[in-house]
Amino acid sequence: MKIATYFSAAEAEGIEVHGRTAVVIDVIRATSTIVEALANGARAIYPTVSTEDAIRLANSLGREDTLLCGERKGLKVEGFDLGNSPLEYGTEQVAGKRLVMSTTNGTRAFAAAQGADRVLAASFNNLGAVVGELGRTGDDLVVICAGKEGRFSLDDALCAGVIVLELLGRLGETTTPDLNDASRAAVGLARQLTPDEELLRRSAAGAALMEVGLAADLPVCAQRDRHDLVPEMTDRVIHLPTARR
Amino acid sequence: MKIATYFSAAEAEGIEVHGRTAVVIDVIRATSTIVEALANGARAIYPTVSTEDAIRLANSLGREDTLLCGERKGLKVEGFDLGNSPLEYGTEQVAGKRLVMSTTNGTRAFAAAQGADRVLAASFNNLGAVVGELGRTGDDLVVICAGKEGRFSLDDALCAGVIVLELLGRLGETTTPDLNDASRAAVGLARQLTPDEELLRRSAAGAALMEVGLAADLPVCAQRDRHDLVPEMTDRVIHLPTARR
Repeated sequence: MKIATYFSAAEAEGIEVHGRTAVVIDVIRATSTIVEALANGARAIYPTVSTEDAIRLANSLGREDTLLCGERKGLKVEGFDLGNSPLEYGTEQVAGKRLVMSTTNGTRAFAAAQGADRVLAASFNNLGAVVGELGRTGDDLVVICAGKEGRFSLDDALCAGVIVLELLGRLGETTTPDLNDASRAAVGLARQLTPDEELLRRSAAGAALMEVGLAADLPVCAQRDRHDLVPEMTDRVIHLPTARR
Repeated sequence: MKIATYFSAAEAEGIEVHGRTAVVIDVIRATSTIVEALANGARAIYPTVSTEDAIRLANSLGREDTLLCGERKGLKVEGFDLGNSPLEYGTEQVAGKRLVMSTTNGTRAFAAAQGADRVLAASFNNLGAVVGELGRTGDDLVVICAGKEGRFSLDDALCAGVIVLELLGRLGETTTPDLNDASRAAVGLARQLTPDEELLRRSAAGAALMEVGLAADLPVCAQRDRHDLVPEMTDRVIHLPTARR
């Protein structure tokens, strides 16, 4: 079993994902928000790179049950229905809806994962469920951190580390996975740092969020196992696997 | 005081370096080799990106006291005088010579550092001297890891972490530097992992070196404070500062 971690969407561009399960992580905030939206009844999420693509796709899906979602510089795109705060994705807003979502870093990470046998979305909010799923299958993994503007981001790297560390614990002595440099570093971080609200507040992504008045998102993003579900992307659409819906 | 670490030359491209001291790290092997060469009497090192540029520059400097140095895929470039093993850079080979050097990742990291107020070369081999110099000046820092093919590399990240951790220790309570996400992660790694030959052997860069039969370089690259000097790049030329020559 191989576990290859990449610390930014930029690092992950062009990697070999065929034959592997990809885990996409954007703690602040795309994958936290995706987990929240699906937990609250959203039917499916369509990640798009540009806001123009998002608008085009929403129009072709039919605007009556489709919401335009996403942020630029942390704030809701003008004219969109929702931004990128998990707190906006309550049942009243999203139950039964399709969500077309464009976020700065998260969408790029999902794009890098395309072509993998499976593409799962992970955050602290569904970490236990993701580790359970990965431990059950034992597939080779690529763990793709969204990062921030093409660079390392502590919140995503630490989430990756906790996932890999807990997965190693679950595999036990039976398997010694082959870890790339970034996986080993991520595990080192998970052994050293505590993933809590304070750590998120001190991360670059967290500080940027606080600057635009969205500090209230951080305790949500830091919450372990807020939901027991594993979003999966198939044909560029993220949803809950049928068996779990 | 700000300390911003970047885990690969790709991450560091386009960053703001003006007004800061840049520390360039390529443990396996460019900065280890640069330290070794200057310790053994090389007059100056000229990093170039392409092998063609290296040949042109060597010809214009005058081939009688200039050596063509560098690697591709770990091995000496055909027709060059030296590869990129510290062990090749003994006094007999390099004393009094100018070295034109093209390496895969290291040269790119020096290019990203251009424009900084000062550009220093660091490796485990001269770590103590670098920390001493940084502690003396207290300048804002950018720490640029060469990384491997545009990605995170454990050997460089750990070297960065040990430098930042020891610098924090030297600054003591008087200063609380502002660390970016990667600096905080690097410090976490330095607290968690031991930088020794075994760690280098298990890194991607170390494994690649072993594959081409150059395992003997690794104990050299892992050696702490093998030399007490700080190479500095001025006008694209790396040398020892006059006062220390």
